[in-house]
Amino acid sequence: MSTTISLARGAPCPEALDAHLIARCTAAALEADGVRLLSYGTGQGYAPLRERLAAQHGVEPGQVFITNGSLQAFVLLLSTHLSPGDRVAVEEPTYDRALLQLVRHRMDVLPVPVDEDGLDPGALAEACADGRAPRLLYTIPNFQNPSGATLSEERRHAVLELAERHGFLILEDDPYGRLRFSGAHLPGLFELGGPQRVMFTSSFSKTVAPGLRVGYVVAPPEISASLAAAANRTYISPSLLAQGAIEQLVGDGHLDACVRRVTRLMRERRDAMVDGLDQMPEGTRCVPPSGGFFCWLTLPEGMSADALHGPAREAGVVYVKGSDCFLSGGERTLRLAYSGVGPDDVTEGMRRLGSVFRAAAVAATA
Amino acid sequence: MSTTISLARGAPCPEALDAHLIARCTAAALEADGVRLLSYGTGQGYAPLRERLAAQHGVEPGQVFITNGSLQAFVLLLSTHLSPGDRVAVEEPTYDRALLQLVRHRMDVLPVPVDEDGLDPGALAEACADGRAPRLLYTIPNFQNPSGATLSEERRHAVLELAERHGFLILEDDPYGRLRFSGAHLPGLFELGGPQRVMFTSSFSKTVAPGLRVGYVVAPPEISASLAAAANRTYISPSLLAQGAIEQLVGDGHLDACVRRVTRLMRERRDAMVDGLDQMPEGTRCVPPSGGFFCWLTLPEGMSADALHGPAREAGVVYVKGSDCFLSGGERTLRLAYSGVGPDDVTEGMRRLGSVFRAAAVAATA
Repeated sequence: MSTTISLARGAPCPEALDAHLIARCTAAALEADGVRLLSYGTGQGYAPLRERLAAQHGVEPGQVFITNGSLQAFVLLLSTHLSPGDRVAVEEPTYDRALLQLVRHRMDVLPVPVDEDGLDPGALAEACADGRAPRLLYTIPNFQNPSGATLSEERRHAVLELAERHGFLILEDDPYGRLRFSGAHLPGLFELGGPQRVMFTSSFSKTVAPGLRVGYVVAPPEISASLAAAANRTYISPSLLAQGAIEQLVGDGHLDACVRRVTRLMRERRDAMVDGLDQMPEGTRCVPPSGGFFCWLTLPEGMSADALHGPAREAGVVYVKGSDCFLSGGERTLRLAYSGVGPDDVTEGMRRLGSVFRAAAVAATA
Repeated sequence: MSTTISLARGAPCPEALDAHLIARCTAAALEADGVRLLSYGTGQGYAPLRERLAAQHGVEPGQVFITNGSLQAFVLLLSTHLSPGDRVAVEEPTYDRALLQLVRHRMDVLPVPVDEDGLDPGALAEACADGRAPRLLYTIPNFQNPSGATLSEERRHAVLELAERHGFLILEDDPYGRLRFSGAHLPGLFELGGPQRVMFTSSFSKTVAPGLRVGYVVAPPEISASLAAAANRTYISPSLLAQGAIEQLVGDGHLDACVRRVTRLMRERRDAMVDGLDQMPEGTRCVPPSGGFFCWLTLPEGMSADALHGPAREAGVVYVKGSDCFLSGGERTLRLAYSGVGPDDVTEGMRRLGSVFRAAAVAATA
């Protein structure tokens, strides 16, 4: 059999990674600020990059905390700012690694259903009215991982209103927002709600390169300070070389070109995947995403994406079980990442998957 | 007043950092293996560097776990392999950040006194005979932080014998071992005791550059695997760019030259500090270290290095209070790092410190 095609990993394809650009930016950064980049820094991260991000987000540099990827910031936030038993609302489905950390930190997870317009503020309002308002809402409003859904503008306002009324914080995780294929950019929760109500986290993993592990969070000063203290006692300072490269890359004006290139590459792959949806059994649901890395499929009733994961792998294609992104349930769903492979592999992967799924659908109705 | 001189930070001086070499190595690494370095990796770290370190230590690559600095590995070890209440023996004094993490993880810390030949195996044997054998011994046998002491060869065997008899693991932390000014290299606990009894941790922070944050631990396969799983769910993979640079630097044979240069720089600074010891009040004790970054001072009876920390800062010199390196006590002691500043600053720092300390000594005996 030919090589396995992975539609599982939410990673940019090799063509998205510009090794020459990173080498050039790293050399320039070392030339300009070598001693600082090679010395111990502080827990907060590389100061010039923090200053740049602060200016971009309209906050003080003390509110920007740069980490070895944004997941690290999320984990530090759970361990420093929240306590076991605290209620944290998340989209259902949500990012599997975030959910795993919430469970490991013994948070009281409140799942809020997602449809094609993002999380349902009505369901969240109901929980709040029930006396189950969360302390924190963790949300990926743009091209969500795993659903691909984008929170509508109307719902953004509704969510912020709920946060205001019930006094909860929002953590807006936006790694994919700039990778939009069509439609207009929507104002972010952080822009709309302000830095006292909303924390913002993102990274350069999807727009530049994940191996650099440069993510950050913008938080109220006291939270940012406690995150930095936790970082300092855990790993002293994050790896500065990659932060220097990113600072140089952004400062030299290369980020927009990176975003354009990655967006073009992702659009081609999304198109190939959407074309392949006609291979799926009748009744399969998928709303094609308008940006980001993922398509989210719901198989027809009676079918299980969990049960078909093994047979699909045997047929040479791998995906993420949707159930990994739910506290419970989700067996009919799966996440397909078109981001990591070439368009031809997306097409071939969909062909293999369609053949496994259609055979199972026939068996289910036989 | 002139600028404050920091004898506090255990960091290499700017002259020890070769920005051009790192830029060259990073570019070469990206040229050779750009896609892998810029993609998500695994929790274990960059495979070629793991393979190199494994060969060097005579273990399987699966036993090498590379982290964002070696402190991160220590913290992950505490949270995955040990449980609150587990007894962990440490040198007294010990590395302040390690001690802080042990306390935060609610370990039962067993302090073992240190003299100029390193930790006292007699004291450890006594605790073991008392039914207080530790589950883990954390030790820095070479040019210890903070005491500068090196464990004698005889004591190394004695410590290993205790570990064998009482069934505890040893974590040998050796960031300074290659930075020796005089005398012969002593065989490490890991070399003597083997990888089932001893875990080994080190980093490139002291020999190449701390800002790179490349540290590692060599552990039994099952421990290494659980560390990697913890890393993967916390930050997915460590920053690979710096690991690629290190792999290239070592592979191209530059490490020995780095070690020689840093050793020469540190020897000059150590000499300046030892010369300055005659500025200290009579009765001050210090055993000049034969490698590493630190001199450890014990002030005469009746004096407090804790109390003099403020006055010294006002006089323009900063040090680490020895008491930070003890569970309790240690007020007469202080750690002086000669590593981070030039020899002239070491001399001037010792002059300022001597003047503050001598004045206090006069007042104490007046």
